[in-house]
Amino acid sequence: MTIENPYLMFLGDAADQLAAKVANGTRIWRPDWCIGQFRLPGCGADLGLPDMTMEEAAAAGVRTIIVGVANRGGIIPDSWVAELKRGLELGMNIASGLHNKVAEIPELVEIAKANGLRLDDVRHPTRNFSVANGIKRPGKRLLTVGTDCSVGKMFTSLAIEKEMRERGLKTSFRATGQTGIFIVGDGVSVDAVVADFISGATEWLTPANDPDHWDVVEGQGSLFHASYAGVTMGLIHGAQPDVLVVCHEAGRPHMRGLPDYELPPIPETIDFNLQAARLTNPQVRCAGVAVNTSHVSDADGEAFCRRVTEETGLPCVDTMKHGVGAIVDRIQAEEL
Amino acid sequence: MTIENPYLMFLGDAADQLAAKVANGTRIWRPDWCIGQFRLPGCGADLGLPDMTMEEAAAAGVRTIIVGVANRGGIIPDSWVAELKRGLELGMNIASGLHNKVAEIPELVEIAKANGLRLDDVRHPTRNFSVANGIKRPGKRLLTVGTDCSVGKMFTSLAIEKEMRERGLKTSFRATGQTGIFIVGDGVSVDAVVADFISGATEWLTPANDPDHWDVVEGQGSLFHASYAGVTMGLIHGAQPDVLVVCHEAGRPHMRGLPDYELPPIPETIDFNLQAARLTNPQVRCAGVAVNTSHVSDADGEAFCRRVTEETGLPCVDTMKHGVGAIVDRIQAEEL
Repeated sequence: MTIENPYLMFLGDAADQLAAKVANGTRIWRPDWCIGQFRLPGCGADLGLPDMTMEEAAAAGVRTIIVGVANRGGIIPDSWVAELKRGLELGMNIASGLHNKVAEIPELVEIAKANGLRLDDVRHPTRNFSVANGIKRPGKRLLTVGTDCSVGKMFTSLAIEKEMRERGLKTSFRATGQTGIFIVGDGVSVDAVVADFISGATEWLTPANDPDHWDVVEGQGSLFHASYAGVTMGLIHGAQPDVLVVCHEAGRPHMRGLPDYELPPIPETIDFNLQAARLTNPQVRCAGVAVNTSHVSDADGEAFCRRVTEETGLPCVDTMKHGVGAIVDRIQAEEL
Repeated sequence: MTIENPYLMFLGDAADQLAAKVANGTRIWRPDWCIGQFRLPGCGADLGLPDMTMEEAAAAGVRTIIVGVANRGGIIPDSWVAELKRGLELGMNIASGLHNKVAEIPELVEIAKANGLRLDDVRHPTRNFSVANGIKRPGKRLLTVGTDCSVGKMFTSLAIEKEMRERGLKTSFRATGQTGIFIVGDGVSVDAVVADFISGATEWLTPANDPDHWDVVEGQGSLFHASYAGVTMGLIHGAQPDVLVVCHEAGRPHMRGLPDYELPPIPETIDFNLQAARLTNPQVRCAGVAVNTSHVSDADGEAFCRRVTEETGLPCVDTMKHGVGAIVDRIQAEEL
């Protein structure tokens, strides 16, 4: 799977901005690829892109229609299918992040086949992966891990990859979720892989590379999340990270979706993730902490970061406010 | 899925005894259910059961044909399909542990449907599971964990369930792999569940129960296995075990399938598994160690168990040689 760009962002009749968060994340990180949006009557989302019909999108050179929205009630409405069909007839591919597969809608499959176009359901890996072999491979890898889900692991990974690239380092962002996949045009939704192959899929996604090349791997879940820690564990082992960066959201009242579970302290998060990661890379180290402080006051956010640095001896930044330069500084200093 | 018994053990033309190890494990633990075996010319396996034709099996009252063998080259040969078809025509269900699904062979599906019979592919969960909720539920649960894969977790779990039952305790064995599923007629192959749902599937498999009822949950993989630790982690969190029992094979030279990886020391195995398990059950404890000593001398085996007890303060048994009474003694003593 390689998703061709430029993209038309298909918003359909998404209820609100939150329902379009995958599309929005893609637009933020790839403004040059996202050249238009498609909206149906009743759409409550807006990416601030030019509205285009399917005909206008095709004329503007769009290669792929990105369905980066949550559909209501878990079905793909006929109104969407009609427009997607028109898009295929006009020669554009479709890449979808819906749970329901576009590649299982017979009329879309038929036109795509006839026209040699792609229907990619990025939430659903179609490739067969091998079981992980655990063999150490060349190239350096950084993995973001978290105290919880949805604490900025993708955002921080992309910021680190950008910072490294701007400093002239060889680097690739490796996407493990749907938004990340739209942002780089390739990747694996590791949480949708069959359990036996989580680590194997991650080894495939982050292959051997030049000794001075950095794969920046998007983390998923948390070793401290009672629903998803298995995914995180497999990702850690498969990535064989040289460096971990811990992500956190200040002020979050409890683990996402689990009202009875508190977030773990950051030092404990670092220790447990390092312990897990040492299995496949005994040299692993933690290079810093990235905190989303947008839900607390500026003063509390700054104090939080200072305290983390005191407790851990590591750089602690808010990725949005401070950037990730301090973390990349440390990685470069340690590499000397 | 509930697999009806008695069983006909379908060995086909299995190359050797090892290729029939699932069938053999089922026969050992359920001698009363396994009333015959079916072999084709060239079969190198023998369970020591009466050979039966499909007609003889049906006449003897067999309810389900169990395909508990590895097929050669990853395809189901026509010779097998012809016999399985005959079995369905005679009114017997089929439960298969093959990677290839019997439920995807159209001629078998057709007859099964027409006759109201089941085709269960036990390696491939067909149910949709929910994401784990992590909410503490009543009933007690014991989970076997291991230094490695294939160190006797199923065998030890079954022995503990049997010992508990003989002592008058309320208990259920909960199967998480294909052999276990054939042995109790129900369960989930957790390693074949989509990664996001490992813990959720385990919560489903080990539901709320009487406060004094013990679920004995068959472990899978190892937190120290670079290929499968994600499965193990999800299983630990979903099971919310009150008690862990650590399994090990004395004398194993390296982790199964990973020549570069040594087995972890037992105290470290206990500590890391307890640390992981505390997330969903802070009261979890380790009640003992079960070692397969059949690959070392009697003297070395006994010395090994004594040393483990000295190092850990826990009962350490060879399940085959000593039974698991000492471990159940400790569990009962701690419950008082």
